Amino acid sequence: MAQSKNIVWHDSKVTKEHRHELNNHKSAVIWFTGLSGSGKSTISVELEKELYNQGVRTYRLDGDNIRHGLNKNLGFSPEDRKENIRRIGEVSKLMVEAGLFTLSAFISPYREDRNEVRELMEDGEFIEVFVDASVATCESRDPKGLYKKARAGEIKGFTGIDAPYEAPINPEVTVDTDQQSLEESVETIVKYLKAKGYLA
Amino acid sequence: MAQSKNIVWHDSKVTKEHRHELNNHKSAVIWFTGLSGSGKSTISVELEKELYNQGVRTYRLDGDNIRHGLNKNLGFSPEDRKENIRRIGEVSKLMVEAGLFTLSAFISPYREDRNEVRELMEDGEFIEVFVDASVATCESRDPKGLYKKARAGEIKGFTGIDAPYEAPINPEVTVDTDQQSLEESVETIVKYLKAKGYLA
Repeated sequence: MAQSKNIVWHDSKVTKEHRHELNNHKSAVIWFTGLSGSGKSTISVELEKELYNQGVRTYRLDGDNIRHGLNKNLGFSPEDRKENIRRIGEVSKLMVEAGLFTLSAFISPYREDRNEVRELMEDGEFIEVFVDASVATCESRDPKGLYKKARAGEIKGFTGIDAPYEAPINPEVTVDTDQQSLEESVETIVKYLKAKGYLA
Repeated sequence: MAQSKNIVWHDSKVTKEHRHELNNHKSAVIWFTGLSGSGKSTISVELEKELYNQGVRTYRLDGDNIRHGLNKNLGFSPEDRKENIRRIGEVSKLMVEAGLFTLSAFISPYREDRNEVRELMEDGEFIEVFVDASVATCESRDPKGLYKKARAGEIKGFTGIDAPYEAPINPEVTVDTDQQSLEESVETIVKYLKAKGYLA
């Protein structure tokens, strides 16, 4: 552990690398993208628990802690949706600098918006996880009843119904929740993190 | 360490308390307020190094990483200054939930703005550190040449010259950099954190 060393600071500051040393793991944003009902949130919750059990430091950003706090002054216009993702990207970047794995679970349907977040980060610090599932599967799950409302025309511009979802072209990880169980999806991501040296 | 335990999760999520257990310390925002040149940034840098040496997880928010990132679309109008502090407060809150001590070093001259951040946090999670120094002292230091410009009228609305600074009424900690050395100031804050049980 770093605190047992006699560090000579030379006017420097605590860096990301110092934090990695203290934590004994690296840091990155794990960006879940996929349709409503694809399983982004569920997988991110389970992944966070698995990482915690392995002594890994994380934080999960989702609608609950972002839309009611940092982004409570944003609506759902195209500009506000873009600003929503931009702020989430900037906060993710700060948390990665702070030594955490940031688990961001948002539909984030547009390739351009996701790539802007990727551009914010250093190489290897943006892990795009495509949570793939057919619209039919997501609609059959419909955990929040949103597809039903979208089909009834009560919600306009719903991703997958009357607004596009742009799937990642070359994501770091794909999990197919039509086929894979929750446990298999989590294991796929953990294996990636270990194979790439993010975790000891 | 928590990872050695066999945790039964029961559908719960990783909480702030879990993170405190893993890190072996609590979390809070340490909010430095004071005039330009009072020593906020210098003290926060030194405090962060001292905490790191003790194995404590932190992150420092300052103009460099906030104004060029999350808040790059904000200017210096009264509304934008207020939104600047609001977003910093919301990010601080997320980082405290993530188990970190967030060291925020901004002039933050208005009591109301600081109190709004305090209100965001749980009891005991907002540690206001008043970095006290006379205008005369700060002006004699003038590390960025800003007082000179303000006196020459080249900068308008400069805190302490032609804009007010509202000192905290009941801050958790006061350091007086007219009197205390950098080391003494850092020690004062570390002692507070230990006395109040934030650190083991």
